[in-house]
Amino acid sequence: MRRLRDAELVDLADELRRDTIAKVAATGGHLGSTLGVIELTVAIHAVFTTPRDKLIWDVGHQAYAHKILTGRREAMAGLRQDGGLSGFTKRSESVYDPFGAAHSSTSISAGLGFAAARELGYGEGDVVAVIGDGAMSAGMAYEAMNNAGALGKRMFVILNDNEMSISPSVGAFSRHLATLCARAPVVGIDVVMKKAAARLPEPFKTGAARARQAMGALTGNSSLFEHMGFSYVGPVDGHNLPQLLAILRTLKTRADGPVLIHAITRKGAGYAPAENSADKYHGVGSFDAKTGALSKSKARAPAYTKVFAQALTEEAGRDDRIVAVTAAMASGTGLDAFAKAHPERMFDVGIAEQHAVTFAAGLAAAGMKPFCAIYSTFLQRAYDQIVHDVALQGLPVRFAIDRAGLVGADGPTHAGAFDIAFLTNLPGFTVMAAADEAELVHMVASAAVHDAGPIAFRYPRGEGTGVALPERGVPLEIGKGRVVRQGRDIAFLSFGTRLGECLAAADLLAARGLSATVADARFAKPLDTALIEDLARNHDVLLTVEEGASGGFGAAVLTHLADGGLLDGSVAVRTLTLPDRYEPHASPDVMYERSGLTAPHLADSALKCLERTSRHQKDHALRLAAST
Amino acid sequence: MRRLRDAELVDLADELRRDTIAKVAATGGHLGSTLGVIELTVAIHAVFTTPRDKLIWDVGHQAYAHKILTGRREAMAGLRQDGGLSGFTKRSESVYDPFGAAHSSTSISAGLGFAAARELGYGEGDVVAVIGDGAMSAGMAYEAMNNAGALGKRMFVILNDNEMSISPSVGAFSRHLATLCARAPVVGIDVVMKKAAARLPEPFKTGAARARQAMGALTGNSSLFEHMGFSYVGPVDGHNLPQLLAILRTLKTRADGPVLIHAITRKGAGYAPAENSADKYHGVGSFDAKTGALSKSKARAPAYTKVFAQALTEEAGRDDRIVAVTAAMASGTGLDAFAKAHPERMFDVGIAEQHAVTFAAGLAAAGMKPFCAIYSTFLQRAYDQIVHDVALQGLPVRFAIDRAGLVGADGPTHAGAFDIAFLTNLPGFTVMAAADEAELVHMVASAAVHDAGPIAFRYPRGEGTGVALPERGVPLEIGKGRVVRQGRDIAFLSFGTRLGECLAAADLLAARGLSATVADARFAKPLDTALIEDLARNHDVLLTVEEGASGGFGAAVLTHLADGGLLDGSVAVRTLTLPDRYEPHASPDVMYERSGLTAPHLADSALKCLERTSRHQKDHALRLAAST
Repeated sequence: MRRLRDAELVDLADELRRDTIAKVAATGGHLGSTLGVIELTVAIHAVFTTPRDKLIWDVGHQAYAHKILTGRREAMAGLRQDGGLSGFTKRSESVYDPFGAAHSSTSISAGLGFAAARELGYGEGDVVAVIGDGAMSAGMAYEAMNNAGALGKRMFVILNDNEMSISPSVGAFSRHLATLCARAPVVGIDVVMKKAAARLPEPFKTGAARARQAMGALTGNSSLFEHMGFSYVGPVDGHNLPQLLAILRTLKTRADGPVLIHAITRKGAGYAPAENSADKYHGVGSFDAKTGALSKSKARAPAYTKVFAQALTEEAGRDDRIVAVTAAMASGTGLDAFAKAHPERMFDVGIAEQHAVTFAAGLAAAGMKPFCAIYSTFLQRAYDQIVHDVALQGLPVRFAIDRAGLVGADGPTHAGAFDIAFLTNLPGFTVMAAADEAELVHMVASAAVHDAGPIAFRYPRGEGTGVALPERGVPLEIGKGRVVRQGRDIAFLSFGTRLGECLAAADLLAARGLSATVADARFAKPLDTALIEDLARNHDVLLTVEEGASGGFGAAVLTHLADGGLLDGSVAVRTLTLPDRYEPHASPDVMYERSGLTAPHLADSALKCLERTSRHQKDHALRLAAST
Repeated sequence: MRRLRDAELVDLADELRRDTIAKVAATGGHLGSTLGVIELTVAIHAVFTTPRDKLIWDVGHQAYAHKILTGRREAMAGLRQDGGLSGFTKRSESVYDPFGAAHSSTSISAGLGFAAARELGYGEGDVVAVIGDGAMSAGMAYEAMNNAGALGKRMFVILNDNEMSISPSVGAFSRHLATLCARAPVVGIDVVMKKAAARLPEPFKTGAARARQAMGALTGNSSLFEHMGFSYVGPVDGHNLPQLLAILRTLKTRADGPVLIHAITRKGAGYAPAENSADKYHGVGSFDAKTGALSKSKARAPAYTKVFAQALTEEAGRDDRIVAVTAAMASGTGLDAFAKAHPERMFDVGIAEQHAVTFAAGLAAAGMKPFCAIYSTFLQRAYDQIVHDVALQGLPVRFAIDRAGLVGADGPTHAGAFDIAFLTNLPGFTVMAAADEAELVHMVASAAVHDAGPIAFRYPRGEGTGVALPERGVPLEIGKGRVVRQGRDIAFLSFGTRLGECLAAADLLAARGLSATVADARFAKPLDTALIEDLARNHDVLLTVEEGASGGFGAAVLTHLADGGLLDGSVAVRTLTLPDRYEPHASPDVMYERSGLTAPHLADSALKCLERTSRHQKDHALRLAAST
C-alpha cells in the first residue's frame, strides 16, 4: 500500500468505503464513525510505518476500515459476533492495535506512554493518536495534553472533528472548535503548509521549573491546543486525501514536539443514509447497503432504558426538584425523552463523568433531586467523586445505572460488572437492582422520595420481561426484599434480573422433587437481614445470584451470616456472581450461559451444594457422635 | 465586617494573618496555603454575602482564615485533633462551608451545581469558587469549565495562582499561566477595571446546537479560560486588598456569566519562614511562631514512604525498564528521592490520576515497568483507567498504594479504605499488602519482576515497625502467605500492618489459656487457598483482619470457604474490616481503636466467636442426635 501513488490511494479509499458499508450492512456495528475517517485511515497508513509507528484510535469504534486494511478483511464477517472481531481496537487481535480502547479519551495518555518509552530506548517509531471532538471534552484528554505539552516529545494527535461524538457535542470546547473553523475556514493545502512551516518546530522547552518569562511565540488567536504546548495545524479537510497525505508527510519530516492536526470530517461521509441520520447510524443493526433500510427487529417488551426515562419524566412532572444529568449519553440513557418534557431540567455535561457526579452533588447540596444517569461501566470514571463528594457528605444524588451486567456485542469493555461491589461498601449508600421493568418504575419512585443519602438503582441493557407496568411507581420500603415463590429445601436470593432464571431453576428442581424458595433482594444495601436470616434458617441451601463481580451482594450476605454465627453447618451458602474473568463479546444470553448464571446452572449448583451439605452434615454428626 | 472601611479591612487582614500563624503554630496544619489567601479571604467575605452567597474553597486546606472569620476562631485550638475542627472545609461544621472538600479540583463542578439550582429557583446568591493553579491541572476542573462556559450561568472562579500546589506545578497549563502573566504583568487597578469593563458581560449564547459562525468576540492573545467560555480578568495581585475589593465589587455588579479572576499569590505570604520554604510549610507540625523553628518529633523507624522510595530507587538501578509515575505527589510518595537518582525515568504528570494510570499503561505496553505511586484515596480517581486500560488488557502496571487504611489527622476524606475491594474483584490483578517495612521491600522486588499482569501493593502512612530491613528485596512467591506463629484454637489471618496487633491479640489469648495461630496473608489476590483451608480446618475460629472496608480480603476468604463447602460448622469465621462508617479524624491509633482493629478488640472478637461456636456446635449435635 505504501508503494501506491496518491491517485491510487484515492481509489483505495473509495473501495475501502464501499467495502466497509458492505461489511457493516451484513453484521451491523458502528458505521458512521468509520465512514468519517476513511481518508484519514488511508493517509495515516500510507504515510506512517504501522505497526512500527503506533496508531492509536480513541474509543476504537471508528477503526473498521483500519481493521480491513490490517489483515482483518475476511474476519469482518464475524464483527461483534460470538468468537469474531471486537467492535473496538484490541491488542490481542492484531499488532496493528498497539493499545486497545472502547471507553473514550484514553489515546493521548497511552500514546504519550509509547512516546516516553521510545525516548528512553524502549520501542521505536512515531505515535499517532486519533481522537474525536466529543472525546476531547473529557478531562482525561486535557490531563494528557497538559503532560504531553510539557514533556515536548514528538507525537501526533489528529483531532477528528465531526461536530459530534454520539450525539451533538456540548460544552465550551466544542464552541472553541467552531471558532477556530470560523476564523480560518477549512483551508487549501498551500495555506496549511505555510502555517505548518511557520509553526514547526516550536517545542516548548522542557524542565520542571516554571519561568515567569514571556513565551513570545504565541501570536494571533491562539488555540487552546497551543496554550497546552501543542503545535496546531488546521483546520484541514479530513476528506481531501491528497491534502491529508501532503500534510502528514510534511509533519512527519519536520515535527519536533507534540502536534495537533485539526481535521474536519463528516460522520457517515460518502453514504447518504448515514450522513443524513448520523445518530441512527452511530450504532446500527444490519441494513440494506443499497437503500440504507434498517432491518427491523421486533421488540417483545419495552427496553429498560425507555421505561426508566418515562418513569423519571413522569416523576419530574410531579416534582420540580427533579433534574437529570447525563454525560454525553442523552440518547443512550433515554434522557432525550426527559429533555423534551423538561428541557430546562436536563443537563448534558459532555463526556465528563467526574464533573457530572460532583455537579450533581452540588445540585443536591442546593436542594435539588439530581438523577445522574450513567452506564455502569462509565460510572467507574467517577468513583472518587461518588466516594468523596457524594457519599462522604451524605448528599442525596440518585444514580440511574444503565447497562448493568453483561451487555452483549460491546463485550467486556462495556460490561457493568463492578458497580455492586464498589457502591455497597460505601457507608450510607442505598443500592438497588431491578428484577424487571415494573420494579424499575418503583425504584425510580423510591429514589425520588429518598432524601436521606445517596441511592442507586441498576438495570440491564435490552428489553424488559414484558411484565405489566404500574400506572405509577410506588416507593419501596428501603432495605426490604420480597419472596416471590415459597419453597422448602433450597432458597434462591436474586439481586437483579436473574430473578426469572431463578424461577426457571426452581421449576427444574421441582421436576427433581425439590422445593425451592425464590426471593428478590431488591436491595444490596441496606440488606434485608430478616429475609436473609429467614432463608438461611429454613433451607438447606441458600444461593445468592447477581449480575456482577465478586465482592458485591453475595459477599455482603455471606459476611452478614458469618457475623451472626449463622454459618453453623445447618445451611450451605454459595454466592453466584460473574466469574473472575473478562467475558468475550457474544449475545447476552450466551455470555450469561458461559458465566453460569442461567437456570440449568443455577439448578445444578443448588443440587451439588445440597448433596455436599448432606454428606457434610452426616460426617459431622458422626464425628460429634464419636466425640461424645 | 461588611461595615468596615477598606483601610479597616486591611488591618483585619493583618490581624487575621497573625492569628492564623499563632493558631497553626500550636496545632500544626496547612499553613502556607492559608497565608497565601488571607487578602482573598477578607475580600470575598467583605464583598459577597456569605453564607447566602456560596463560597467554595477547592481542597479546603487553605480555609483556616475563613474558619477563623466564620465563627470557628476558638475552635481552631482543636484543629485536626480528635473531636476538633477538620483540616478541610466541611458541610457539617458550618453553614459557611456549603460544599466540603479535601480532594482537589471539585469546586467548579460543585459551584456550577449551586448556580444551576439557583437558576431553577432553588437556593439563591452568588457562587464563588477559589481554586489553585495546581488543581487546574486535573481534568475534572476542565470538564467543569467546559460545562460552565457552555451554560453561561453567572459564577465566579478565583484562580489562586501561587505557582505551586503542594510541589511546583508541572504541565503545559502552568506555562500558559506564566505566559498570561508575562504578556500582562500584574496590573494596577485602573487597567484591570478597564479590561473588566471591556470584557464583561460577554456571555456566550447558550443552546445545544453548535453553529459554525465566527464568535467574533475573541481578540488578542486569548487565554484558555476565554476559549472555555469564561470572561478572564487578570492577572491581579492577590495580596493587594484594596485592589481585590474594587475588582470583586465591580464584577459583582456587572458580571453576567462565568468569570475567572486570575490572582497571583505567594504561598506563605507575610511569614518569612513559610515563604522561604513553601514545601516544608505546606503541611507542618507545631512550630515556634516567632522563629519558625519546627518542633521535631523523633522517628522510631523509617516511614513506609521512604522505605518504598529507597527500594524502588535501588531496583531501578538494576533494571532500566523501571520508571516511576506520580500525580503531583513527588514528595508525598517519596519519589523525589527516586527522581534524584533517575531523573529521566521520573514522570510527575500533575494532579491527573486518570492520565497517570493510562500513561503508565502505555509505558507498560511499550515494554517498560512503570510503578504508579498514588495514595489509596486518590487512586479512586483512576478506577476506570485501572479497569479498562490496565486490567482488561493485562498490562503489567505496578501500583504502589501509599496511605492505605486510616491516615489520622487528614480524616475520612483521605482514608485509604476501598482499594482492597475495588482491586481484588478485577480479573488477573495481583494485590498485596505489606505487614511491615521489610515486607514492603520484598513487595517492591516482587512487583519489579512480575510481568504477568497488573500488580498492586499497599502500605500505610507513617512509621514502620522498626524491623530490620533486608539488604535487598527478594521476590515473594505469588499467592503465598506465611504463618508467623503456630497455634491451635484460634487463627488470625492478617492482610496488612495489623499483623502486629494480631500477635498482641494472640498474647492476650494465651493469658486466657488459648492458643492462637497468626498468619500474614501477604496476598488478597490470588488467595493462598491452601493456607486458608488449612487454617479453617485446624482451628475453631478463623478471623480475617484488614485495614479496609468490607467487600475486600475477608469477603474473598469467606467466599472461597463457602465455595469449597468448608463453612460446615466446624469453624467459625469472622471478617474484621473497617466499620461501615466514615471514621472522623483523630490519631491513627485512636481511629483503629474505635474501628475495633486493635489487639484487645481482636482478642475479644475471637473469644466471643469461640463461645458462640461451642454453643452452636453443642446445639447442633443435640439437634442431630434428636433427629437420628
